[in-house]
Amino acid sequence: MLSLDSLETPCLVVDRHRLLRNAQTMLARARDLGVALRPHVKTPKSVEIARLSLGADNGPITVSTLLEAEHFAAHGFDDILYAVGIALGKLPRLAALQGRTGATIRFVLDSVAVAEAVAAFAQQGHSGLQALIEIDSGEHRSGLLPDDPALPEIAAVLADAPGVELVGVMTHAGHSYGTDDPAKIRAIADAERDAAVSAAETLRSHGHACPVVSVGSTPTVLHAGHLHGVTKARAGVYVFWDLAQASRGVCGLHDIAATVLSTVIGHNRQAGRLILDAGALALSKDVGANNFMPDAGYGFVCDAATAEHLAPLAVTEVHQEHGAVPVPDASWFDRLPIGSLVRVMPNHTCMTCAAHRGYHVLENGEVVAEWPRVNGW
Amino acid sequence: MLSLDSLETPCLVVDRHRLLRNAQTMLARARDLGVALRPHVKTPKSVEIARLSLGADNGPITVSTLLEAEHFAAHGFDDILYAVGIALGKLPRLAALQGRTGATIRFVLDSVAVAEAVAAFAQQGHSGLQALIEIDSGEHRSGLLPDDPALPEIAAVLADAPGVELVGVMTHAGHSYGTDDPAKIRAIADAERDAAVSAAETLRSHGHACPVVSVGSTPTVLHAGHLHGVTKARAGVYVFWDLAQASRGVCGLHDIAATVLSTVIGHNRQAGRLILDAGALALSKDVGANNFMPDAGYGFVCDAATAEHLAPLAVTEVHQEHGAVPVPDASWFDRLPIGSLVRVMPNHTCMTCAAHRGYHVLENGEVVAEWPRVNGW
Repeated sequence: MLSLDSLETPCLVVDRHRLLRNAQTMLARARDLGVALRPHVKTPKSVEIARLSLGADNGPITVSTLLEAEHFAAHGFDDILYAVGIALGKLPRLAALQGRTGATIRFVLDSVAVAEAVAAFAQQGHSGLQALIEIDSGEHRSGLLPDDPALPEIAAVLADAPGVELVGVMTHAGHSYGTDDPAKIRAIADAERDAAVSAAETLRSHGHACPVVSVGSTPTVLHAGHLHGVTKARAGVYVFWDLAQASRGVCGLHDIAATVLSTVIGHNRQAGRLILDAGALALSKDVGANNFMPDAGYGFVCDAATAEHLAPLAVTEVHQEHGAVPVPDASWFDRLPIGSLVRVMPNHTCMTCAAHRGYHVLENGEVVAEWPRVNGW
Repeated sequence: MLSLDSLETPCLVVDRHRLLRNAQTMLARARDLGVALRPHVKTPKSVEIARLSLGADNGPITVSTLLEAEHFAAHGFDDILYAVGIALGKLPRLAALQGRTGATIRFVLDSVAVAEAVAAFAQQGHSGLQALIEIDSGEHRSGLLPDDPALPEIAAVLADAPGVELVGVMTHAGHSYGTDDPAKIRAIADAERDAAVSAAETLRSHGHACPVVSVGSTPTVLHAGHLHGVTKARAGVYVFWDLAQASRGVCGLHDIAATVLSTVIGHNRQAGRLILDAGALALSKDVGANNFMPDAGYGFVCDAATAEHLAPLAVTEVHQEHGAVPVPDASWFDRLPIGSLVRVMPNHTCMTCAAHRGYHVLENGEVVAEWPRVNGW
């Protein structure tokens, strides 16, 4: 067994107990809501973590890139939702993946133009294409408002296209990350559900089956009053949590399962700062947590062994490979001598983890496994 | 030959003509200043681009990670400066690399404690260790002020250690990125040079040879009045340039050689926005350019073929795989139909490129090569 001391820094460390607890909490929540969980693997991008999230060797997942779809399909996952509006140039690769593995890679679209292009693509001999219409439930990123007249038009285009099946609707209330007020998150969650359900009803009223009604973001799945009418819930960041979620009260610091192990490489006594070997690349430059937690910086600095926050330490400035940590007094130079290890709780774990090749899995103080990630496109 | 149309998006595209011009301009500048150029490969992390930067198959380079050092040493680069304060735990890996390849991997330190640890490490039978003392020339990140009494102390520790050689001093005036006033950049450049030269003189006055006096950042190398007393200049971002540099007047938009090819995947007509398949992961969340170029967002949106800025389009909001581009009027939906390609000029190219596995090299409108990057640690 390896100890933390034996790892090269900077690197990602994931606490297996916290990870399991986070996974089980969300599985129980989905069960209580009466919906299937389709975890978004864009956060962990790891087969092992997806399996923990599902409590099974495979199951429905959500991906953010076709490379993820290919990676998970190669590991036996055969029910995959690719949840970024399909770029037409990606259809051949998606169809090839389906043909090669037998997995179903559902995709999303939100315009008549794309629906027509998908129909034209299917006409070239590609069958088994399964589309969902993306609904805008308030985030105003992509998707159609539930009452947009294009909704039945798209459905009609797809219904007329041999080889293409409209399987349902999906929406993502990403604006749930924009508040720390539980009542507001609940209102957003309820609006997310209502938008998806009403879009599905509109489609059904036009004669389309619409079996899938998919919603989700970690905060909305946790805060929704109920999910009647919804069939699938998507969430991702809950497997690791991060300061952005903690800043909104959606998790506690003790739930955060992924951290960046780093070495103290310098004592800048004049400036009153520790220098870490984790900088902008190892941590990312996401500072979203600071909206509601102004002292979060680029991440809280924690004890390497316990992952307890060494309050008030945070990484306040990053260069490519340097992180600067102001200390309130010189005693910290003795507490954290040059060469010490610390762990940095990420501001936004999806961004932080993306810089790393994989996870060192920590259990009872020992590194018990290494799990790879699938980065890129 | 491939065309841009055949590439999967998002991906990195590098314009070979611009790259070559940027490399030759900096080589000529170093020649005019009478110093050797030690390009910082942390920006491109590419053997091919390092070779263009040197105008030779190999030569002195600067790296930011030991993985870069290993990669470049494996490709024949035998004079490498690892310019991040050495973490003691990395010494065995560095020594092993030297032993395995015969390359010299110089490292930097800025404390007596680290110097003593290096001496102790050498005593375990590791020879050929070459250290530089890092000087703080005003950035206040790491390094000693040139008149710090620890400077000769460190030199004395290293001089007494068999197997260790103190080869000189290095400094990085990274605060040159903090202004768009050429006079201020020049003043910072001159202070950077003076700090390094005076630190070297102090060491010499204490009987140490100090053959290397290394300075550099792209803006300071370009703006320095002279570099008398300096032996090596380091710079990196100039190979690609980016909006952060353009915002400070250090380059023009037509110098920017690396861009992210992206597909228009949606028209959000209600919100007046295009949606791209390049988001936070493909572009990074660095927004440093916005200090002096408030319309830079996460990057300027450009014509895919010409890389001309489609003014005023910029990516103003990013999600993990979505980028949002407000359009001033609906005519843009016709100019850039769904499925169109665009290229995004990065805000900070070091961060943007780090998300990608390599470069698609564009010359006369055709993709003529693929060059890999060495990401990670």
